[in-house]
Amino acid sequence: MDRTPGDLTALSTPARVADPDEALTPDELALATRNHGLPLEALRHDLTPPGLHYLLVHYDIPDTDPDGWHLSLGGRVLRPLDLTLDALRARPAVTRRVTLECAGNGRARLTPRPVSQPWLVEAVGTAEWTGVPLAALLAEAGPAEDAVEAVFTGADHGVERGVEQDYRRSLPLATAADPARDVLVAYAMNGAPLPPQHGSPLRLVVPGWYGMAHVKWLREITLTATPYTGFQQTAAYRIRRDPGEAGEPVTLIEPRALMAPPGFPDFMTRARVVRPGPVPLTGRAWSGHGPVVRVEVSEDGGAAWTDAEVVRDPAHPWAWAAWHTTWTAAPGLRHLAVRATDATGRTQPLTAPWNRGGFANNLVQRVEVLCAPAPEPAPGREPERRDPPATP
Amino acid sequence: MDRTPGDLTALSTPARVADPDEALTPDELALATRNHGLPLEALRHDLTPPGLHYLLVHYDIPDTDPDGWHLSLGGRVLRPLDLTLDALRARPAVTRRVTLECAGNGRARLTPRPVSQPWLVEAVGTAEWTGVPLAALLAEAGPAEDAVEAVFTGADHGVERGVEQDYRRSLPLATAADPARDVLVAYAMNGAPLPPQHGSPLRLVVPGWYGMAHVKWLREITLTATPYTGFQQTAAYRIRRDPGEAGEPVTLIEPRALMAPPGFPDFMTRARVVRPGPVPLTGRAWSGHGPVVRVEVSEDGGAAWTDAEVVRDPAHPWAWAAWHTTWTAAPGLRHLAVRATDATGRTQPLTAPWNRGGFANNLVQRVEVLCAPAPEPAPGREPERRDPPATP
Repeated sequence: MDRTPGDLTALSTPARVADPDEALTPDELALATRNHGLPLEALRHDLTPPGLHYLLVHYDIPDTDPDGWHLSLGGRVLRPLDLTLDALRARPAVTRRVTLECAGNGRARLTPRPVSQPWLVEAVGTAEWTGVPLAALLAEAGPAEDAVEAVFTGADHGVERGVEQDYRRSLPLATAADPARDVLVAYAMNGAPLPPQHGSPLRLVVPGWYGMAHVKWLREITLTATPYTGFQQTAAYRIRRDPGEAGEPVTLIEPRALMAPPGFPDFMTRARVVRPGPVPLTGRAWSGHGPVVRVEVSEDGGAAWTDAEVVRDPAHPWAWAAWHTTWTAAPGLRHLAVRATDATGRTQPLTAPWNRGGFANNLVQRVEVLCAPAPEPAPGREPERRDPPATP
Repeated sequence: MDRTPGDLTALSTPARVADPDEALTPDELALATRNHGLPLEALRHDLTPPGLHYLLVHYDIPDTDPDGWHLSLGGRVLRPLDLTLDALRARPAVTRRVTLECAGNGRARLTPRPVSQPWLVEAVGTAEWTGVPLAALLAEAGPAEDAVEAVFTGADHGVERGVEQDYRRSLPLATAADPARDVLVAYAMNGAPLPPQHGSPLRLVVPGWYGMAHVKWLREITLTATPYTGFQQTAAYRIRRDPGEAGEPVTLIEPRALMAPPGFPDFMTRARVVRPGPVPLTGRAWSGHGPVVRVEVSEDGGAAWTDAEVVRDPAHPWAWAAWHTTWTAAPGLRHLAVRATDATGRTQPLTAPWNRGGFANNLVQRVEVLCAPAPEPAPGREPERRDPPATP
């Protein structure tokens, strides 16, 4: 942590990619101890409890006061709005079940590794968000004829690659104002007020989009006549291979399936153990581009694939689907894998396409499992276990 | 993740200490993405919201069913009990505010580094736990004359250093049965049913002890006539320098103070920035050995120390105290530190005493801060910020 005194650029350096053999850095560890993923066994919950939902906070969780909170809606509008929480709660509310994934999910498994929050595969969660449709608020304010984007500002303040900023992102007005896109200004998560870390008292929810669009601690919406070119829009969250490229923006979530690793784990390695015989395999699958229509499981590391049963709930088009199948485990070290395909034909790759930010990477998940018979207890000693549960 | 096929010992290896220059391993990262600490700005909350409270799950979060849950209390007792949740809820309940810290907090900063969950300093949280005093349940069951320990078994199942086990720990009966120790069989956290990751539907809470004693997903209490010698009691959670030593057991929490890092952070380095002038410094301090009587802050990396104001709430003797002071920041790179002293005279060291497990390490926290004036906005461009809040 020794750093040279100086201005912000001395402590806030450009984005970088790790050297080919560079192990995880102390800075990446410091992010991993704060932010956290979904423990994969929590895929069993249709609705992720707030403390198990993935969390990525760019700066600090701000010290917000719901009682004094105002959301302003201004810029290129005919009738600017200044809304308290009570004013928002007085408007017609909707609740949407939404699967949210970090754009950097899977980044830490890329080679070379983009140096940032080191997600392996677990940066996901599903919650029910309640709030006011953004389309209704925009209709109330009346976009000016020349408005093209809505810019959303959060209350979290920090510095990133030398740029001091409040977290700020934009959406095309066509997306923000489209009732069918279900963009929400949300004040509740799973029926309770937003927890501090998920945006209390207000956040944006943009179903189908990666997490960077869902601005937390939302305090300002500004319609603009030109596209927003701020840090989080044009420096961060771009898919580029070379630092000089403009790159493509990160937008909708690519399809992904995850498996709740079967059996039980070793503490240190998280390696899995199952008993020989039938083993239920279950998990979730989602895509921001369209419904997941197929989930396939491989028992041989990705050579052969068989279809799993996919259960979608038409009442919740923005939420993950459940999937399940049964695997007959034979003794030895086994290599499971799972992949999803959505209605647009998008599927998951077996080798990860690389970009400098590690964004929108949806490499198939691989789960190594040791299938072994139950051990004999040592003579004269009570075993420190009972039979493990049959389901993951 | 390539591992040799074989029995459990092939994937579940002995504890080890990292090589002198060994960076964080993929296994440690996998633990860090699941388990998580308290984001230090959340020290502002008297009661930590569940999703911000530190979390360490040894194996998987088990799939428990509150409706069918039974807690058995047997072994060396006169009247064995078998209790449903309703039976527990029908008994007189107490609520206790308790600060809980992982025994391995600070481990990842030790040299050489014990390879395990890589905590930096953030494995702490405070919650109000509601449940039935264990002393009352033990009185109801009637310990046999030869009972010396109470052994607690959770429902989480895994393998650790080759030993397949349900998580299990013991307490001396003198501690377990002492009403003044306030040991609880808890079914609620901050007024709500326990979240899955914090032990739903039942957990043990042992005020003043490190986290390993607070057995989650509690299903069985067994009184024994001999001390328990299982894995988590005699292999893990011992303070030893050499692997062959029996070592000393990990028990009560050593004193520690933490500071909510002031100002605002850089995203990647978490380095802090403040403006010149008065800066409020706030945080928490706790000890399992006795009340915190003194908190000192250093502005020069630990050479000189000045007292902070300590605010204890006598209604909550098991919870952390708040502390605050004001620092006058001058431009440049500054090195803050904070340390706590408790009523027994225990305080925090400036260099960490080392043990193989990285347990009960309470090295003083150091916070590096760049004090810099607000930057001038670039001409013709709206700054991506407003003034940061004055409080951390």
